[in-house]
Amino acid sequence: METLQDTSNTILQLSYALDTFYFLMCGALVMWMAAGFAMLEAGLVRAKNTVEILTKNIALFAVACTMFLLCGYSIMYPGQGEGEIIPYLGFLLGSENELSSVLKGGEDAPYYSTRSDFFFQVVFVATAMSIVSGAVAERMKLWSFLLFATVLTGFIYPVQGYWKWGGGFLDAKGFLDFAGSGVVHMCGAAAALAGVLLLGPRKGKYTAKGQANAIPGANLPLATLGTFILWLGWFGFNGGSQLKLADVENANAVAQIFVNTNAAAAGGVIAALIIARLLFGKADLTMALNGALAGLVSITAEPLTPSAFAATFIGGVGGGLVVFAIILLDKLKIDDPVGAISVHGICGIWGLLAVPLTNSEASLWPQLLGIVMIFGWVFITSLILWYVIKLLVGIRITEEEEFAGTDLVECGMEAYPEFTSTKA
Amino acid sequence: METLQDTSNTILQLSYALDTFYFLMCGALVMWMAAGFAMLEAGLVRAKNTVEILTKNIALFAVACTMFLLCGYSIMYPGQGEGEIIPYLGFLLGSENELSSVLKGGEDAPYYSTRSDFFFQVVFVATAMSIVSGAVAERMKLWSFLLFATVLTGFIYPVQGYWKWGGGFLDAKGFLDFAGSGVVHMCGAAAALAGVLLLGPRKGKYTAKGQANAIPGANLPLATLGTFILWLGWFGFNGGSQLKLADVENANAVAQIFVNTNAAAAGGVIAALIIARLLFGKADLTMALNGALAGLVSITAEPLTPSAFAATFIGGVGGGLVVFAIILLDKLKIDDPVGAISVHGICGIWGLLAVPLTNSEASLWPQLLGIVMIFGWVFITSLILWYVIKLLVGIRITEEEEFAGTDLVECGMEAYPEFTSTKA
Amino acid sequence: METLQDTSNTILQLSYALDTFYFLMCGALVMWMAAGFAMLEAGLVRAKNTVEILTKNIALFAVACTMFLLCGYSIMYPGQGEGEIIPYLGFLLGSENELSSVLKGGEDAPYYSTRSDFFFQVVFVATAMSIVSGAVAERMKLWSFLLFATVLTGFIYPVQGYWKWGGGFLDAKGFLDFAGSGVVHMCGAAAALAGVLLLGPRKGKYTAKGQANAIPGANLPLATLGTFILWLGWFGFNGGSQLKLADVENANAVAQIFVNTNAAAAGGVIAALIIARLLFGKADLTMALNGALAGLVSITAEPLTPSAFAATFIGGVGGGLVVFAIILLDKLKIDDPVGAISVHGICGIWGLLAVPLTNSEASLWPQLLGIVMIFGWVFITSLILWYVIKLLVGIRITEEEEFAGTDLVECGMEAYPEFTSTKA
Repeated sequence: METLQDTSNTILQLSYALDTFYFLMCGALVMWMAAGFAMLEAGLVRAKNTVEILTKNIALFAVACTMFLLCGYSIMYPGQGEGEIIPYLGFLLGSENELSSVLKGGEDAPYYSTRSDFFFQVVFVATAMSIVSGAVAERMKLWSFLLFATVLTGFIYPVQGYWKWGGGFLDAKGFLDFAGSGVVHMCGAAAALAGVLLLGPRKGKYTAKGQANAIPGANLPLATLGTFILWLGWFGFNGGSQLKLADVENANAVAQIFVNTNAAAAGGVIAALIIARLLFGKADLTMALNGALAGLVSITAEPLTPSAFAATFIGGVGGGLVVFAIILLDKLKIDDPVGAISVHGICGIWGLLAVPLTNSEASLWPQLLGIVMIFGWVFITSLILWYVIKLLVGIRITEEEEFAGTDLVECGMEAYPEFTSTKA
Repeated sequence: METLQDTSNTILQLSYALDTFYFLMCGALVMWMAAGFAMLEAGLVRAKNTVEILTKNIALFAVACTMFLLCGYSIMYPGQGEGEIIPYLGFLLGSENELSSVLKGGEDAPYYSTRSDFFFQVVFVATAMSIVSGAVAERMKLWSFLLFATVLTGFIYPVQGYWKWGGGFLDAKGFLDFAGSGVVHMCGAAAALAGVLLLGPRKGKYTAKGQANAIPGANLPLATLGTFILWLGWFGFNGGSQLKLADVENANAVAQIFVNTNAAAAGGVIAALIIARLLFGKADLTMALNGALAGLVSITAEPLTPSAFAATFIGGVGGGLVVFAIILLDKLKIDDPVGAISVHGICGIWGLLAVPLTNSEASLWPQLLGIVMIFGWVFITSLILWYVIKLLVGIRITEEEEFAGTDLVECGMEAYPEFTSTKA
Repeated sequence: METLQDTSNTILQLSYALDTFYFLMCGALVMWMAAGFAMLEAGLVRAKNTVEILTKNIALFAVACTMFLLCGYSIMYPGQGEGEIIPYLGFLLGSENELSSVLKGGEDAPYYSTRSDFFFQVVFVATAMSIVSGAVAERMKLWSFLLFATVLTGFIYPVQGYWKWGGGFLDAKGFLDFAGSGVVHMCGAAAALAGVLLLGPRKGKYTAKGQANAIPGANLPLATLGTFILWLGWFGFNGGSQLKLADVENANAVAQIFVNTNAAAAGGVIAALIIARLLFGKADLTMALNGALAGLVSITAEPLTPSAFAATFIGGVGGGLVVFAIILLDKLKIDDPVGAISVHGICGIWGLLAVPLTNSEASLWPQLLGIVMIFGWVFITSLILWYVIKLLVGIRITEEEEFAGTDLVECGMEAYPEFTSTKA
C-alpha cells in the first residue's frame, strides 16, 4: 500500500531527474558552442591557417575537459572555505549523490546530479579558452597555445571562477555575473589580450603609416554557421545557469532567460548592421555576426531580470559597441583576426555594468570590483604565462612560416587543397 | 507535515516545469532552423551572392524576433475577440503566470510558461520569413528585403496566424493546420511568389526561347548541411506544436509526431530521388534535399493522426510533387533559385489537403477555405507591399550589379575570396 | 476531491512523459549524427566525389528509416522467443501504450512511449549504415550501395541487434554492449570491410611497390564540423541507452554517461594528437578528428561504470589505437578513405574488450563470443550480399568514371562548381 511518504519520495526523485536532465541538455548545447567557435574562427582566417585553427579548437576542448576533471573543478568548487581568495585544491570528481540524501528533501538536499553539474561547468571553461584561439590566430605556435590552454583551464580560470561561482570573495562582495559575461567571456578576452600584446600583429596587417589592412576571412558561410551555432548554444549557456527548472518560479525564469538571450542577440545584429551601414555604407556581414555575439555576451551577466524589450536594448548597445571597439583596437594596432577581444572583452564589461540597470540587487561598485579583479588576475597571470612559454619554446612562428601559412608548418596539410590554387 | 494538497501542488509545479522545458527545447530546435535556411540558401546560390544571402538570413531572424516582440505576438494571440477576422492590437509581451494561477489547476490554469510559448512562436515567424529569402535570391536589394521582412513578421504573418492559432475565424470554421503547412510554409511561399513575380527572373536564367538554364549552387555540402539542420529542427517544429507533453496521452502524441515527421522526410527523399532518376537519369542531390523538405512540409499540417507508414506515404507524395513543381515553375519562368515556392507552397497545400485522409475531424471545405484565405491574404498584401517598396526605394539591383554579384555591391565583401579566381 | 491514488497516477504519467521526452531528445541527437557522418565524409573525400557521398548519406538515412519501419524493428524487437538466434518476423510498428497499462505501475508496466523507443532505435540503424558509406567512398556505384543499405538496415543489422538488445542468445550469454560498440559500430565496420575487400582500393592509392599515397580530403573544416556533430550526437547515443532517466539512480547514471562520453572523446583527441606528433612530427588534424571518434566508439560499450578518469583512459587508448590501425590498414592495402574501419571496427572491438575492466558483471569470454558472432554474421552476410550485387549490377564504377569523379557520373552535378578549376 503506497503512503503519502512514498508518493512524496517519488516526486523528489522525479524533480531530481528533471533538473538533472535540464542540466545535461543545457550542457550539451554549451558543448556545441565549441563547434561554433571552431567554425567562426575557421571562416574568418585565411585558407592557409585554417587547419591549424581547427586543430587548436578541437585540441583545446579536449585539454579543457581533461584539465578541469583533473584539478579545475575542485579548485573552482571546493565546497569549503567560502568567501576566500585562495580556493581549496582537490583532485578529480567527488562522489555522486546518494538516494537517501536526495530523499531527505529540503533546502540542503541535492536536487540534481553532481555529474550533470560537472558536465555543465566543464563546457564553460572550454568556452573561455575558445575565445583565446581566435585572437591569436594566424601567427602563434600550436603547441605553445596548447601549453597555455593547459594552465588556463586547469588553474587560471578555476581560481577566478571560484571567486564568484564557487562562493569566493567576489560573491561575498555582491558581484553579480549570472552566466559569465565576466567569469567566462571577459576572462577569455583578458587572456587573449595578453597573448596578442606579446605576440604582435600579423605581418602585413598594419602599414608603416599605421593604417589597418583588411585581411578577409576565407569562408564566410562557415563563420555564419559558427555564429548560429553559438546563438543556439547560448540558450544552454544562459538558460542552464539558472541551475534549477523544476518548479513554476524557476521554469518561468528559464523561459524568460531564453527569450532575453534571443532578444539580445537580435538587438545586437540590428544595431551592428545599422551602425556599420552608417559608417561604411554597406551591410557588413562580419559586423552583423559580431553584433549577434556582442548582444549575447552583453546579456549574459544578467539574462533574467530585464524585460525582453530591455534585453533587446542591452544587446543592441553591445552590438553598437562592438563595431567601435573593433575600429578602436585596429587604431591601437591590437591585431585580433576574429574580433574576440572586442566581442567578449568590451561587451563582457558592458554586460557586467548593465546588471544594475535591471537588477535592484546589483550595484555599480561590486561590479567594478569584479571587473578589475577578474581582468587583473587573468591578464597578469596570462601575461606571465605567455612570457614564460615565449622564453621556453617561443610563441610565434617565423616570418617565412607565417607567409607559408601555419597549416603546412604546424599540421602538414591544407584545409582546401583543391580550392586555393596559389596556396596564398 | 506534508499534506496531500502540498504533494498535489508540487506535482502541478513539476508538470508545469516539464511542459515549459519541452517548449523551450522545441523552440531551440526551431531557432536552429534559421541556420538551416541560411546554409541551404547559401549553398544553392552562386559564390558571388553568398554573403548577401547570409546577411539577409541573420538579419531577417533578428528583425522577426524584434517585430514579433513589439507587436506580432499580441496581434496573433490577442486573448480576446475569438472567432474574428481582425485581431486585437496590443504591444509587447504580457505578464508571466503567477504561481497561484498555476496551482489552482484544472482546464483553465496555465500549464507552461507564457514566455516559453512566446519563444516557441517567435522562431516560427522567422521560419516563414526565411522561406522568402531563398526565392528572391541573387537579384533583390538587401535593405528592401529587410523592409519587407519588418512588415511581414510584424503584421502580415500574425494576422493570418491569428485566424488559425489565435482563435480567429479559420479556427472557428474547422480549418486544421497542426504545425503550419499553411500558416507558416504556404504563408512564406505566397510572400515569396509575390516578390518573385514583381522582381522577375535572374539575368540569363531563361533563354529567349524560354529554355531554363541551370545555375548551379556554389557549395552543395552547405546545402546538404542546411537540409539536415532543417530536418532536425523540424522535430521541434512539429513536436512542439502538440503544446503539451506531461501526461501519457500527450507524451504518446509527441512521440508519434517525431516518428511521423522523420518518416515523411524519409519518404520525401526516396520519392524525389527515384522520380528524378526516372526523369533525368541521375541521382539528383538537390532534388533529394528538396524531397526531404517537401516531405517535412507535407506532414506538418497533420503529423499526429497518420500511422508511420501513412506519414511515409504523405511525405513521399510531397517528394514527388516537388520535382514536378520545380519543373513547372521553370516552364512558367518563375525563377526561384532554391525551389522554396515549390517546397513550401505546393507541398504546403498538399499537406493541408491531406489532413482529411487520416484525421476524421477534418473535411475538405474548411481546408480549401484556409488555403484560399491564407494564400489570398498573404499574396495580396505582399504584392502591395513589394510594390510600394519598389516605388519608394526599388527592389531590384541593376544589371551591372547583378553581373558583379550582390556581395560586393550590397555587403562590400566576398564569401570565398581565395576560392573564386574569376569572381564570376 | 483528489485521492492519493489520483496523485499517484498523475506521478506515473509525469514520469512516463519525462522518460519519453528524454528518449525523444536523445533520439534527435542521434539523428543529428547523420549530418555528422555526411559532413565528415564529404570533407574527407576529393571535391569530385562530394555530391555522391552527400547523396548516399541522405539517401541511406531515408532507406534506413523506411526499412526499419517496414521490418527491421519487428525483427530486432520481436517481443517473444527470447534467448534465440532466429527472431520473430513481424511488420510495421505495433500499438502504442494504453493509459491503463501505464497506470497499473510496477516492473512490467511501460514507462515510456513505444514510439519514442522506435525513434531512438531507428536512428541507430542509420548510424551503422553511415559508417559503411565513408569506407567505400570514391569508387562505388551509388545505386548498388543503396541496394546494400536496404538489406543491411532491414535485415542484417536487426538480426544481430536482436541477439543482444532484443533479448537474443548473446544477451542470454552475458555479452555486454551498453550502447553499441559492437551492435552498431563494429557492425558497420564489418559491412564496410566486406565491401572494401570486394571493391579494391581507389586508383592511385597504392603504388606498384605497395606505398600508400595520401589522397587529401577537399574540405577539412567540413570534416571537423562533422566530428563535432558526432561528438554532440553521441551524448544522445550513449545517454539515451540508459533507457530510463526519471529517478535518482537513473538520472545519476545518465549524467555519468554524459561525463564519460565527453571524457573519452577528449582522451582520444589528446592521445591521437600526441602519437601522431611523435610518428609524423606534425599536429595531424585528421588524426585528432579520428581520435575523438575513436574515443567515443571505445567508451560506447560501457559508458556507465568507468570513472571519468578511467573513461579518459579508455578513450585515450582508442585514440592511440586508431592511428596505428589506419597505418596498418594502409599496409594491408585496405583502402578506407575516411578511416571508418579503424575507428568503428578496431575501436569497437577495443571498447567491447574493455568492458570487464570497469564492469564486474562482464567477463572476457562472452565479450569475445559477441565480437566473433556479430563480426562473423555481418561480415559474411555482407560479403555474400555485396557479391550478389556485384554479379547483378556491379559495385564499382569504371576507371574512366573514377578519374572523372563519381559526382558527374552518378549525380550529374558538381559540389563546388566555382572552386575547382581543374575538376580534378
